Amino acid sequence: MTAPVLYLEDLSVGQIFESGSHILTAEEIKEFAGRYDPQPFHLDDELAKDSLFGGLASSGWNVAAVSMRLMVDSLPIAGGMIGAGAEIAWPRPTRPGDTLRIVTEVVEVTPSRSRPERGMVLVRSKTLNQLGEIVQTMASRMVVPRRPLREIDK
Amino acid sequence: MTAPVLYLEDLSVGQIFESGSHILTAEEIKEFAGRYDPQPFHLDDELAKDSLFGGLASSGWNVAAVSMRLMVDSLPIAGGMIGAGAEIAWPRPTRPGDTLRIVTEVVEVTPSRSRPERGMVLVRSKTLNQLGEIVQTMASRMVVPRRPLREIDK
Repeated sequence: MTAPVLYLEDLSVGQIFESGSHILTAEEIKEFAGRYDPQPFHLDDELAKDSLFGGLASSGWNVAAVSMRLMVDSLPIAGGMIGAGAEIAWPRPTRPGDTLRIVTEVVEVTPSRSRPERGMVLVRSKTLNQLGEIVQTMASRMVVPRRPLREIDK
Repeated sequence: MTAPVLYLEDLSVGQIFESGSHILTAEEIKEFAGRYDPQPFHLDDELAKDSLFGGLASSGWNVAAVSMRLMVDSLPIAGGMIGAGAEIAWPRPTRPGDTLRIVTEVVEVTPSRSRPERGMVLVRSKTLNQLGEIVQTMASRMVVPRRPLREIDK
């Protein structure tokens, strides 16, 4: 038996998917930043105090990466989640120790005209911290396969 | 002596910044995906062959993270690069061994009306592979400080 997966037919506008949670530690913030966003306010507690953030804050791309992980775990698209692009914003900083979760809503489901075996799905997601504050909003388009005919026949 | 940094006054529409390059190895692709985007086509060469990608491909978020690193290294904004949000697209897959670089163009420079000490800058960037093909496009808004008065006086 394999884990249940979602095909285009299983998705409808207004559906909401909620993830588990992830604690973003100072260690992960600094490790990610050291590799991908090596700026003082993501790396050094003291230097961060004098920055626009007023204290250590995660790279937005770290929040995006954690959000992707939470989304992969909570929205099991058949064949995997293949994104074509996204619009992303970080309305407030994410701090060491924040517990993040993501809530994703299906906004559009569009079967492809030229490719009958798949479609596009637009989702909007909010990444929330432990206070329920929004630390990231994202709209993303994904390619989602239709259910193969042999499975419909069952 | 400190490294030269760019203030709002140093940026003008049409300016272009070119980065160095980064080779995205299969090892980095799998390590990033294992942590943030654990899907078969980012993790397993064999399973990736049967996916929409037709072979191992990087997570888009891995390309975004590498692009951020390349941008940080090539566009030394005073006080650091603080993004408010971005629009991102991945027109083609990034493959193991691809050499990535980023070209960033200044599109808008807008002094803040309410905060005289800073402004917003809109940049558009293209992440290119070794064939010059675009693997990521991004438009992003950043907060950029104005040059402090004492430095103008010098």
